[in-house]
Amino acid sequence: MARGAKAPNFHAMLLAGGSGTRFWPESRKRKPKQFLALAGKRPLLVESWRRVRKLAPPSRIWVVAPAALADSIRELLPQLRPDRLVIEPSPRDTAPAIALACASLAAVDPEAVVGIFPTDHVVRDVDAFKAAVERAAGAAAAGDLCCLGIKPDRPATGFGYLKCKGSVRAKGPIEVDRFVEKPDLAKAKRFLKTGTYLWNAGMFVWRATRFLDELDRTAPEIRTAVERMLAGKAKAWDKATKLSVDYAVMERARGVKVVPLDAGWDDVGSWQAAAALLEEAGLLDRSPVLVGSEGTAVFGAEKLVAVVGLPDVSIVETPDALLVVRNDQSERVRDVVKELEKRGRRDLL
Amino acid sequence: MARGAKAPNFHAMLLAGGSGTRFWPESRKRKPKQFLALAGKRPLLVESWRRVRKLAPPSRIWVVAPAALADSIRELLPQLRPDRLVIEPSPRDTAPAIALACASLAAVDPEAVVGIFPTDHVVRDVDAFKAAVERAAGAAAAGDLCCLGIKPDRPATGFGYLKCKGSVRAKGPIEVDRFVEKPDLAKAKRFLKTGTYLWNAGMFVWRATRFLDELDRTAPEIRTAVERMLAGKAKAWDKATKLSVDYAVMERARGVKVVPLDAGWDDVGSWQAAAALLEEAGLLDRSPVLVGSEGTAVFGAEKLVAVVGLPDVSIVETPDALLVVRNDQSERVRDVVKELEKRGRRDLL
Repeated sequence: MARGAKAPNFHAMLLAGGSGTRFWPESRKRKPKQFLALAGKRPLLVESWRRVRKLAPPSRIWVVAPAALADSIRELLPQLRPDRLVIEPSPRDTAPAIALACASLAAVDPEAVVGIFPTDHVVRDVDAFKAAVERAAGAAAAGDLCCLGIKPDRPATGFGYLKCKGSVRAKGPIEVDRFVEKPDLAKAKRFLKTGTYLWNAGMFVWRATRFLDELDRTAPEIRTAVERMLAGKAKAWDKATKLSVDYAVMERARGVKVVPLDAGWDDVGSWQAAAALLEEAGLLDRSPVLVGSEGTAVFGAEKLVAVVGLPDVSIVETPDALLVVRNDQSERVRDVVKELEKRGRRDLL
Repeated sequence: MARGAKAPNFHAMLLAGGSGTRFWPESRKRKPKQFLALAGKRPLLVESWRRVRKLAPPSRIWVVAPAALADSIRELLPQLRPDRLVIEPSPRDTAPAIALACASLAAVDPEAVVGIFPTDHVVRDVDAFKAAVERAAGAAAAGDLCCLGIKPDRPATGFGYLKCKGSVRAKGPIEVDRFVEKPDLAKAKRFLKTGTYLWNAGMFVWRATRFLDELDRTAPEIRTAVERMLAGKAKAWDKATKLSVDYAVMERARGVKVVPLDAGWDDVGSWQAAAALLEEAGLLDRSPVLVGSEGTAVFGAEKLVAVVGLPDVSIVETPDALLVVRNDQSERVRDVVKELEKRGRRDLL
């Protein structure tokens, strides 16, 4: 553990890009999920910053994000050093973003070990998180490409899985057999039973240079685009293939390791999930009058809301839009967003 | 017909009291249903005024309402003569209100024939309405207590019925056998089949003095309270028994007649009914984005509303409240109002 998270060359990298429509109308193109306070008083991004502050000082915390979000990020994270904000000229998925971040980092600290973390998730147990990252950082310092894998507590079909060579009860690092796409329910149930699968939560720990070397092998055009961009050729970015880091690197890399994480992780995948987290934090709006509407939750409303005969519904009010959605059909909010695009309502997107 | 609605002594009396919670949050204690534009551009009360203007000049149109609503009524009906607004000191149901109105009218015109009309209903075919009232006015001038009865087009369970001595296909007046309480569905179906039942819509035509004479017989304490009040004893009003005119007079009166009315009448009993009427008028809000939400309607929202997976729901937004209600459970809106009373939220009632 000498070269773990406490070592001077451990850096944290927050992935603050990413968009999506699941939290419309609260989330917008310029205010995606990580900017929302979906689980507590603070936006998920700010909670993420506070979490990695347990692992590194501000001088070693980096944020990667597309240009459109830069101002909002600076505002939310006043402690972020200007030279630690890595700007993607445009969003091109996680492989180019992480490549750019790692290349920027390696230029500053060639020995850097970096933990890469999404900012739109929740981790309740920060101590357990810190211990797992430190464990992974040890392996990373020794040269491993390391993931954090979430111990599943249900047969979830919404996540990719990591098949491990060995029980996920081990503290790890465990060798990863392979990356598995989102399964159907039957498969997910089997995965849970075997005790050798973890959820892929998109959290990675590695030496920056080790990752870039692997990228050279698996997706060299991304590496080239990034290096040319850092050499001043801004347009080179557009040549970086839009790929996830899983697809571009991790699924093809050899000797990937994983450290199991059992730290109250939650991906906050829906308004319903946000309601549960806010309730846990004592922050769920209790003012609505619910008649025959158990499990219904209201977000953002300043006026009194009354609901009659509609259980398990999410109601989300913003100054310019109101969404009423049955929780089990929240996927279809994307159809609302499509319709607004069709109507040219960019003001609402 | 010489003494029909066109006769100089035909007066129209609009009942503008009445409250209820079915249209909360749009309706409030001081802004009940008849003040809402539930079927067109104008409030139902204003539509009612325009309808009876086909029957009488402003000098012979009266409005009865409780004191709390007087200012709003004057504002909505600028043509209403100040001396034609009959104020109930407090709401005491329709028998005292109509008694007070008829006594006030008889004091001005002892020969007056008066048509009494609720103001929270819709009548689409004003010509048919006018013809039926004129027909009833003829019978009333000759001394009959006359009702207008709606030709049923479905086995409604929400209305009282008039059992007629003869087919409702006649133009009338037909003699009324008896008044029937709201039936269950099986009974309502039988009523519809017989062809001798009409809906009691609370519309009456009679000589003012004829009604007062009948009241003397069936509910003399109301007559006494009204006369004492008109003689200057305001407190006498509190002695007028709270009774509906059906119960206090019509069900006990002899020789009641009815003229069938087939004029696109609708009692606008729910938000769902209002949606249908507004759609008919081309006034239903078409801006909401409805995904898997057929039959759902939105009222009063200035912001964009999106609904996902919730068919047959009414959404009603006002500056201080939002209601989301499943149409088949709209009766339970009263539970919302009760809860707000319990919470002391008089600002929302």
